[in-house]
Amino acid sequence: MTGTLYGVGLGPGAPDLMTLRAARLIEGARVIAYPTLAGAASFARSIAAELIASGTQEIVMDVPMTVDRAPAQAAYDDGAARIAAALDQGNDVIVLCEGDPFFYGSFMYLYARLSDRYPTEVVPGVTSVTACAARAGRPLVARNERLTVLPGPLPEPEMRERILGAESLAIMKVGRHLPKIRAVIADLGLTDRATYIERATLDEEVILPLSDAPEKAPYFSMILLTKGNDPWL
Amino acid sequence: MTGTLYGVGLGPGAPDLMTLRAARLIEGARVIAYPTLAGAASFARSIAAELIASGTQEIVMDVPMTVDRAPAQAAYDDGAARIAAALDQGNDVIVLCEGDPFFYGSFMYLYARLSDRYPTEVVPGVTSVTACAARAGRPLVARNERLTVLPGPLPEPEMRERILGAESLAIMKVGRHLPKIRAVIADLGLTDRATYIERATLDEEVILPLSDAPEKAPYFSMILLTKGNDPWL
Repeated sequence: MTGTLYGVGLGPGAPDLMTLRAARLIEGARVIAYPTLAGAASFARSIAAELIASGTQEIVMDVPMTVDRAPAQAAYDDGAARIAAALDQGNDVIVLCEGDPFFYGSFMYLYARLSDRYPTEVVPGVTSVTACAARAGRPLVARNERLTVLPGPLPEPEMRERILGAESLAIMKVGRHLPKIRAVIADLGLTDRATYIERATLDEEVILPLSDAPEKAPYFSMILLTKGNDPWL
Repeated sequence: MTGTLYGVGLGPGAPDLMTLRAARLIEGARVIAYPTLAGAASFARSIAAELIASGTQEIVMDVPMTVDRAPAQAAYDDGAARIAAALDQGNDVIVLCEGDPFFYGSFMYLYARLSDRYPTEVVPGVTSVTACAARAGRPLVARNERLTVLPGPLPEPEMRERILGAESLAIMKVGRHLPKIRAVIADLGLTDRATYIERATLDEEVILPLSDAPEKAPYFSMILLTKGNDPWL
């Protein structure tokens, strides 16, 4: 009997915004796995830390930050092999995922490598999009409104076109792309409608009108923008 | 001292997909509130049912299903007044919301009526979008992909244009709009890339290729569509 591979969403950062199912799986885990980026501490592990029993085996996949994809592919190949070994021994493996596993999550790289060979379950989590909306007090979409989620790295012409065509907008992974995004939004006359949020739901959370956003944004930052009228009854 | 208004997301339906924070708030609640549609049972209440202590006061807002908005506005006006009375007595009021309160949620109607007068907290929840992706085994977005969420009632020409412009797509509130949506997707040659999901995470869950979807879809149904190549490393 092989074990089951679980991709477990942990939500946006506050530990109590993980689901009951995620908490139960982590508390009962004999083997957990998570990626780290270039040796940095794992954000996902920090969300789950209080629930990880001592003695739990931890499979750490250190993913190098390079433009070239081959080193990251090798890191996930190696991680998948170690996870497969644990599954073959009959242990379930709980992969810790910040946010939701299938929403810009690295779990999908393990899913692609393992889900055809092992029973796999994905436990959805609260995404940073709705967490940011909740914290900023900004309803995202009502009735027949459309929501568009854009990644910050999009090139400037496409960013402009996509913002123009959108109704309610979340721009993820702002980070070093903040100056470009801010310029596009200003040029479209939408600055007044945009909110900047970093590290939502954590102690270090920052929520500001986009016009007051800092010069430098961390990777975990977002801009919410609503173009329509107030959608409320 | 007035109480605090909480809009609490309960996730897509399986009770253990609510967050730890949501569960703690409901278990400790002296007053809960939720809407019902034209006298039908409340889906949100059914998700939370096991956690509601006996003796908890329940403020039920019965919202009529009419095209005219005035009766629904009156129902939320009346509900907001009853919630305000409980808050004025110093009780917190926990509003139960399926999914996430700010993602096509009726909580925003209460938020608009009460958040300027009472301390208000929104607890985000797992949305049906990531829950459907998890259950269907379909990663939503990776790296620099865009996600578009469309409501099923969009008129056919706009539905077509928005699907054409999108990359990864979730179409919500499919219900009686299924024939229109299915025809548009077929006409664009995308049927093979679309999955139909109803009542995700519940016992009655249905997951099918869109080509095998039933003739009649319930309100809580969704179509996921990914146009790009496999996004995996």
